[in-house]
Amino acid sequence: MFTKVGIVGTGLVGGSLGQALKKKRLARSVVGTSRLPRSVARARALKAIDAGSTGLDILAGCDLIILATPVETIIAQMDKIKRIIRGDCIVIDVASTKEKVVAQANKRFARFVGCHPLAGSEKRGIDCARPELFKNAPCIITPVKETDRAALAEVIRLWKALGSTPVILDPRAHDLTLAFMSHLPHVIAFALTAATPGKYFTLAPQSYRDITRIASSNSGLWDDIFATNKKNILNSIDIFLTHVNSMRSALKKNDFRALNRIMRSAQQKRRLFP
Amino acid sequence: MFTKVGIVGTGLVGGSLGQALKKKRLARSVVGTSRLPRSVARARALKAIDAGSTGLDILAGCDLIILATPVETIIAQMDKIKRIIRGDCIVIDVASTKEKVVAQANKRFARFVGCHPLAGSEKRGIDCARPELFKNAPCIITPVKETDRAALAEVIRLWKALGSTPVILDPRAHDLTLAFMSHLPHVIAFALTAATPGKYFTLAPQSYRDITRIASSNSGLWDDIFATNKKNILNSIDIFLTHVNSMRSALKKNDFRALNRIMRSAQQKRRLFP
Repeated sequence: MFTKVGIVGTGLVGGSLGQALKKKRLARSVVGTSRLPRSVARARALKAIDAGSTGLDILAGCDLIILATPVETIIAQMDKIKRIIRGDCIVIDVASTKEKVVAQANKRFARFVGCHPLAGSEKRGIDCARPELFKNAPCIITPVKETDRAALAEVIRLWKALGSTPVILDPRAHDLTLAFMSHLPHVIAFALTAATPGKYFTLAPQSYRDITRIASSNSGLWDDIFATNKKNILNSIDIFLTHVNSMRSALKKNDFRALNRIMRSAQQKRRLFP
Repeated sequence: MFTKVGIVGTGLVGGSLGQALKKKRLARSVVGTSRLPRSVARARALKAIDAGSTGLDILAGCDLIILATPVETIIAQMDKIKRIIRGDCIVIDVASTKEKVVAQANKRFARFVGCHPLAGSEKRGIDCARPELFKNAPCIITPVKETDRAALAEVIRLWKALGSTPVILDPRAHDLTLAFMSHLPHVIAFALTAATPGKYFTLAPQSYRDITRIASSNSGLWDDIFATNKKNILNSIDIFLTHVNSMRSALKKNDFRALNRIMRSAQQKRRLFP
């Protein structure tokens, strides 16, 4: 499918993509970069890339570039990458927020397509990479009016070949949706873990474990998500707080009918889950 | 271990206990009651009980009674059960809050021991019962100074025989702990589900699914928990809200250092999980 694929950022997602591309023979060669020499070496050892470097020059001649670093790093490196790669190279990113990166990338790359595979993990780094990471996971693809249609079609084919289900959303809708589906749940997990006296942890039932699992997520990555999706996250927190406060006041007033109404509506809504 | 065990409330927990007692041959016979004739019939069909009834008279002659209905029902039926059972019968309950039920039960039963197996589920009813429900799950046992020591020892042996790990806590500590480990997470799951626009559900990543799973819990049971652990739940909600609000203000002020400090501390704390 591709001759030379370049992965910028050989972490969990970048490394898993490299492994999947090689395993499914979707690329003749895969090269990768990371600012950490160790990550490059591990990516080679774990068969995520054929060759790697801490510099970007290795990306020359690629027909597909995958930007798999945090948003701020992606944006900071764009001009340099543009100077190295071919003009007809397809460029995709896999960042967790889309509005900012898509706007910036469209200014530099003629054939850019924003992507977000919903296949992360609270784990991180190349050592957790696995080629099946994207299998059966949705991948949100965020074309805009200036997106090259042939590049878009090829990117959709790529994600399908990786076992992922492509879902088209515009960047704005993506960031709004993810605020509720991912960023708010992380705020909740961080806050609940911080709020709980640690001595109770030995008695954690499965539900508590599940709800706080993502609190072990990499905080550095989250800086980036909070910075690039601030407005939507603040809005989702406020809507969530309104509902917590309704439950709190109903309980305080012994208004069990109101409390039950909120619980029942959540219960019925949760059953709509596909 | 027991001659005749009586289970009051043949739902998920009561039914699973019956199945486990019979499967492990810990009781010569198991009888059960439920206000629903269908639940009694299903409990017999699913080998949770040998005989059942919608009335309480069937409990006569038992040497172990398991109260497996919601707290308010347990308390409402205590006097009637006391008149039917033998004076030396061991009585346990499996309710989700302990202070109220232990105080009331100790006034009526000479050999009462409060229990709470941390092995519930968002599912409910006899049809979800399974004899392995208690295997590897902690069971909190809440003796107080008036608890009969021989009965306590026998109840500890019972839970061990069911594969559970007994943990001793006083009823007050139990209710305080469970407010954080179970009741607050449920409030969060109900509020998050209610807050999320339903059209986003198709894109729910695993983390969102995990955090809202318990929002499909039976709201009727939760009325009971909220009513009997109100003070602790309100307190845990307030501590949680303090942490959410800290994250919210840090984000609003672009204070990413403060935000990162909160995330990092949660992250490190989460790693303490046993």
